[in-house]
Amino acid sequence: MNTFGEILRLTTFGESHGVAIGGVIDGFPAGITIDMDFIQGELNRRRPGQSALTTARAEGDRIEILSGVFEGKSTGCPIAFEVRNENQRSGDYSTLKDLYRPSHADYTYTEKYGVRDYTGGGRASARTTISQVAGGAFAKLLLRELGVKVYAYTSQVGDVVLHKNYQELDLENIDSNPVRCPDEAMAKVMADEILRTKEAGDTIGGVITGVIKGCPVGLGEPQFGKLHAKLAYAMMSINAVKGFEYGSGFAGVSKHGSEANDIFIRKADGKVGTRTNNSGGIQGGISNGEDIYFRVAFKPVPTLLKDQESVDVNGNPVTYKAKGRHDACVLPRAVPIVDAMAALVIADAYLQSKGSGRFVK
Amino acid sequence: MNTFGEILRLTTFGESHGVAIGGVIDGFPAGITIDMDFIQGELNRRRPGQSALTTARAEGDRIEILSGVFEGKSTGCPIAFEVRNENQRSGDYSTLKDLYRPSHADYTYTEKYGVRDYTGGGRASARTTISQVAGGAFAKLLLRELGVKVYAYTSQVGDVVLHKNYQELDLENIDSNPVRCPDEAMAKVMADEILRTKEAGDTIGGVITGVIKGCPVGLGEPQFGKLHAKLAYAMMSINAVKGFEYGSGFAGVSKHGSEANDIFIRKADGKVGTRTNNSGGIQGGISNGEDIYFRVAFKPVPTLLKDQESVDVNGNPVTYKAKGRHDACVLPRAVPIVDAMAALVIADAYLQSKGSGRFVK
Amino acid sequence: MNTFGEILRLTTFGESHGVAIGGVIDGFPAGITIDMDFIQGELNRRRPGQSALTTARAEGDRIEILSGVFEGKSTGCPIAFEVRNENQRSGDYSTLKDLYRPSHADYTYTEKYGVRDYTGGGRASARTTISQVAGGAFAKLLLRELGVKVYAYTSQVGDVVLHKNYQELDLENIDSNPVRCPDEAMAKVMADEILRTKEAGDTIGGVITGVIKGCPVGLGEPQFGKLHAKLAYAMMSINAVKGFEYGSGFAGVSKHGSEANDIFIRKADGKVGTRTNNSGGIQGGISNGEDIYFRVAFKPVPTLLKDQESVDVNGNPVTYKAKGRHDACVLPRAVPIVDAMAALVIADAYLQSKGSGRFVK
Amino acid sequence: MNTFGEILRLTTFGESHGVAIGGVIDGFPAGITIDMDFIQGELNRRRPGQSALTTARAEGDRIEILSGVFEGKSTGCPIAFEVRNENQRSGDYSTLKDLYRPSHADYTYTEKYGVRDYTGGGRASARTTISQVAGGAFAKLLLRELGVKVYAYTSQVGDVVLHKNYQELDLENIDSNPVRCPDEAMAKVMADEILRTKEAGDTIGGVITGVIKGCPVGLGEPQFGKLHAKLAYAMMSINAVKGFEYGSGFAGVSKHGSEANDIFIRKADGKVGTRTNNSGGIQGGISNGEDIYFRVAFKPVPTLLKDQESVDVNGNPVTYKAKGRHDACVLPRAVPIVDAMAALVIADAYLQSKGSGRFVK
Repeated sequence: MNTFGEILRLTTFGESHGVAIGGVIDGFPAGITIDMDFIQGELNRRRPGQSALTTARAEGDRIEILSGVFEGKSTGCPIAFEVRNENQRSGDYSTLKDLYRPSHADYTYTEKYGVRDYTGGGRASARTTISQVAGGAFAKLLLRELGVKVYAYTSQVGDVVLHKNYQELDLENIDSNPVRCPDEAMAKVMADEILRTKEAGDTIGGVITGVIKGCPVGLGEPQFGKLHAKLAYAMMSINAVKGFEYGSGFAGVSKHGSEANDIFIRKADGKVGTRTNNSGGIQGGISNGEDIYFRVAFKPVPTLLKDQESVDVNGNPVTYKAKGRHDACVLPRAVPIVDAMAALVIADAYLQSKGSGRFVK
Repeated sequence: MNTFGEILRLTTFGESHGVAIGGVIDGFPAGITIDMDFIQGELNRRRPGQSALTTARAEGDRIEILSGVFEGKSTGCPIAFEVRNENQRSGDYSTLKDLYRPSHADYTYTEKYGVRDYTGGGRASARTTISQVAGGAFAKLLLRELGVKVYAYTSQVGDVVLHKNYQELDLENIDSNPVRCPDEAMAKVMADEILRTKEAGDTIGGVITGVIKGCPVGLGEPQFGKLHAKLAYAMMSINAVKGFEYGSGFAGVSKHGSEANDIFIRKADGKVGTRTNNSGGIQGGISNGEDIYFRVAFKPVPTLLKDQESVDVNGNPVTYKAKGRHDACVLPRAVPIVDAMAALVIADAYLQSKGSGRFVK
Repeated sequence: MNTFGEILRLTTFGESHGVAIGGVIDGFPAGITIDMDFIQGELNRRRPGQSALTTARAEGDRIEILSGVFEGKSTGCPIAFEVRNENQRSGDYSTLKDLYRPSHADYTYTEKYGVRDYTGGGRASARTTISQVAGGAFAKLLLRELGVKVYAYTSQVGDVVLHKNYQELDLENIDSNPVRCPDEAMAKVMADEILRTKEAGDTIGGVITGVIKGCPVGLGEPQFGKLHAKLAYAMMSINAVKGFEYGSGFAGVSKHGSEANDIFIRKADGKVGTRTNNSGGIQGGISNGEDIYFRVAFKPVPTLLKDQESVDVNGNPVTYKAKGRHDACVLPRAVPIVDAMAALVIADAYLQSKGSGRFVK
Repeated sequence: MNTFGEILRLTTFGESHGVAIGGVIDGFPAGITIDMDFIQGELNRRRPGQSALTTARAEGDRIEILSGVFEGKSTGCPIAFEVRNENQRSGDYSTLKDLYRPSHADYTYTEKYGVRDYTGGGRASARTTISQVAGGAFAKLLLRELGVKVYAYTSQVGDVVLHKNYQELDLENIDSNPVRCPDEAMAKVMADEILRTKEAGDTIGGVITGVIKGCPVGLGEPQFGKLHAKLAYAMMSINAVKGFEYGSGFAGVSKHGSEANDIFIRKADGKVGTRTNNSGGIQGGISNGEDIYFRVAFKPVPTLLKDQESVDVNGNPVTYKAKGRHDACVLPRAVPIVDAMAALVIADAYLQSKGSGRFVK
């Protein structure tokens, strides 16, 4: 299953060290201006080697559009794109061939498929998220037409927690530091934590917060297809994600209903809204026009520059230590993946809402 | 979107006070013995009026199978089932007609659909989870053939937290008390918390923990369709759920990779396994044969037996106080919904795995 | 696979002699008036026992709506419906249990599923088309709002061919005779052919022509999802159908392009149209606003009131002669199935077109 | 909608004169040897310029695999492929920009999408069937493992009809002449008809017959998803197709049931089979192990090398005559498209059958 979405469908392909990574976006409406600089810019946000915090593997990650765009506009036909890999199985991967790296997908892929592309992580590599980021960039171009804005930022690294909520932050400021935390002071503390971890050859996890502003009322389907269920599914599709919560989340379970309920009010503009927003902008699975916000938990990435025990495909004990350059903390580069997936969800739900809901000729 | 699953597909229907609630299960394999007592028993676990902790609305909730079962076995044809409602729009709902109840779906349904069945919550009522529980019961009959066991239990009510992990509990003991917490002592504390809340006309949230034992290796699809993404989607489809985490979850984000990684070992039976299980039984989106475990956050249900402010459909301020009998805490009755949805996910992923993965004639 | 459609999805269930036959319609827009008399009327058109031409098995086939309709209007929630069977496995079917009836689905069901509901044809019975007719009736209510009209009529019975094309006929006249051929004279000849066949204990096939008027321009998706491919799929889903053609069809293959091409012209109303309509109202898979017309081939139904050779499940030779009342020609009762399936296709394509095509906010 | 299939899913992309044409095959099982010579050979069968009968536009149509194949075997990950276009919008298409060519998709695309890639037919070009042929080649590699053989051949060109049925022909002989008719004498007559048409600047249609041998019993789903409905949908997805019939087809409608029924017998090998095969190898939508055969009607392609009337996008009358090299008869090159689509259907139904039908652990 490499397709995401119901109406706006992203089908992805590619392995870390194969020929190319890419995707096909089907169901993208016609007539939308395709801003290639913006799309490449989004990929650059994900690209390794942006700072001392992330892996130094320098890759161009240049995107090429193969179809579906004509004279600068989408045509309604499938948009295929690809990023050619520069490291096409060039190295020596013989040590990985028969090894099950701890907390990687080596064992499960081998059991499920019998064969496994063991070069650079193959299909399970986080490098494959290029497809999600590119797909999300197209979704953002669609959302731009609707005035919807999608943000994500690092709100926790290890034990370093940003305690401000999103309303206290300038979300236009996210990319102003390498951690992608819009609070400069906390960003520095997080950066220190990452560097300290890196020096130890270790890795560290964290939390990314997502915020969607300007989402139209009425997106999402009741029962299955709830907007927050789609968001959860999208986020859990990102490598290393272990948890998702929206609105009041896990912390809200200890509240009483009388504290947690969002009271409806008539707002200044005459529209109905809520006084608080514990609902996180979604009620009964459908967007209510308030901000949507959510949190995504990332485990520490499993690739360590220190010795680890494991077994090989025959079950024999081995010791393994990764070589090369790897992220000590995936969060700074995961931020553009989180906002890309969120954009895909909202754009898809928007298009879906046109054929469902109240009948309009 | 009222269909869940890829191969084993549950399509649900029904409103709280309509004619019937039910569903159609498509893709259910042929030749499986259909144990009607078991299925009715699962519905009884969800049924209101089981104890002083839950709403006293006494309903039979008798299931009738309409198709797809012949001489006690599934035929491979769609299995339709229904539960007739005994309270079919009998009461007076005129006060609800124009009201937006706080933190309910009244406002979003009205905006999305224009019309709304305002009797008893309509389609947004938790009563519609009858369909999920019944669908899950069929899935459990399939999993029974595979030796897979699915458990869920209440692990937190408000601030009352069960600190034992699932290995320290007797999971066969879940139904031995009305809270559905397999630790008798903690169950009592939770029950007290619920009763105290109920007396105050208020409601309280909590956490349900799910555990899946005996899951075959190789279920789940990489990229999209990851087994934990399907579980997250399933859980977020349950009314009042605000968060999902599996394995090390949110707490694990502050660990280092060297602590969090699950070391592969050769187990006593000669098979490959892991020493720890922070992965929660899923690696790269695919089950690895270890126990799958996860946690689901439930907000306090929004229906209070005390006055609340709100607005009506015209935006005019109103005061609203629910009448009748309502659950002060949804968790005891949500336990069978959580395990039902988990069973649907695993059964679907199992059937999906037969047509994917390594080629076998 | 018992679900039809992409956006407007009909999921069907039921066996000939089971508890009930029915379906769930998901994705039906909210706010459409549900005319129950019209829906029951459509089922009555399919019902057996309407004339001497069709089986005399008298059934009420009363439809009951279980959900999704509130105060006479669709709510956007799934619409479940059912028709209870009056002949629930009441008879003696022991002779059918181990028999493979010629040109029926007995053998293939047994091989695929292992178990088989052998009473009255089970799931393979044409009685299950109740679900399609009911689903199509809802689709017609939607199309009524758009001014789209869907017609079907018997245009051939055995060797008796109606040589007029649809423009020469009064399509409002279809139901004026039991054959459902709008040419009274030919209808009589066809009726005679059917009665002659019936007296011989034999059966006969034929052709049904479908016509869709007022279809909006732009329905259908290029590549896969072509409007005529959806129609073909829909028609081939009807029991006993062996062929489908639209526009110039099979006869048109021997024409030259210079004869077959439809020249574009500006029509009297200023709009672009075509001078001829060999395209059958669909170009590149997308409706062009001209009439859509197609033909559907039905084989003679295989149930004969005369001796036939066959084998039983052990491969032993047997002789079989059907008992009871069976249609000698299925076409008169298949007409409402053809127009129902066509209506489902157009309604679904219409809803699909709202989320695809050119971007409109 | 540019995705075909349920389990084995082909997503296609590309325009005639864009950067590349290609696709992504998802759900392809792991461990199957990928014979690149075979795949390129299948594309060569579709390629223009093979003989005097087809367009002389010489293109390499070299396929490149981007993912999903490792060390010569499929990995279970999505297989992306592309064929770069050599004629990337190099010519002058200004005359096509505002023109609605008769019986092409220019008008409907413009109405649906607002924008249109008018170079070389854009997405509606038959050149996009490269994706289907490549996808089908992969499907054939899978079917090869099962011993299933898929054939297609030209059985009619204009009025020239091959009256032999498939059993009288050597199907291994199809590619021995440029018409792809396995009867050498008739192939010559057809070739003459095509050349005569070509000289007149005109085009001609015809019929392609498909045959599938060795199909396992039990493929196809009852109700929706019938094997012949999938075949019909697949064939109707090919450009210029106007009709589909299988087994006894349209001709069989005038037969009586007593002539048309296929009598079950015990075959020499002890298995159950049928004496005749009017059912075309499919009963109740499910394959019965007999040969599957069907016929596909192709209209004459609309591009003529002679003057035609039409209108432009403003509705003004224009005269249009195509330039360049175009096929006078599409059938010889459509043969590999028909067998490719048939292979995709059978491979998909095979994989689908593994997760449905009787329960097997």
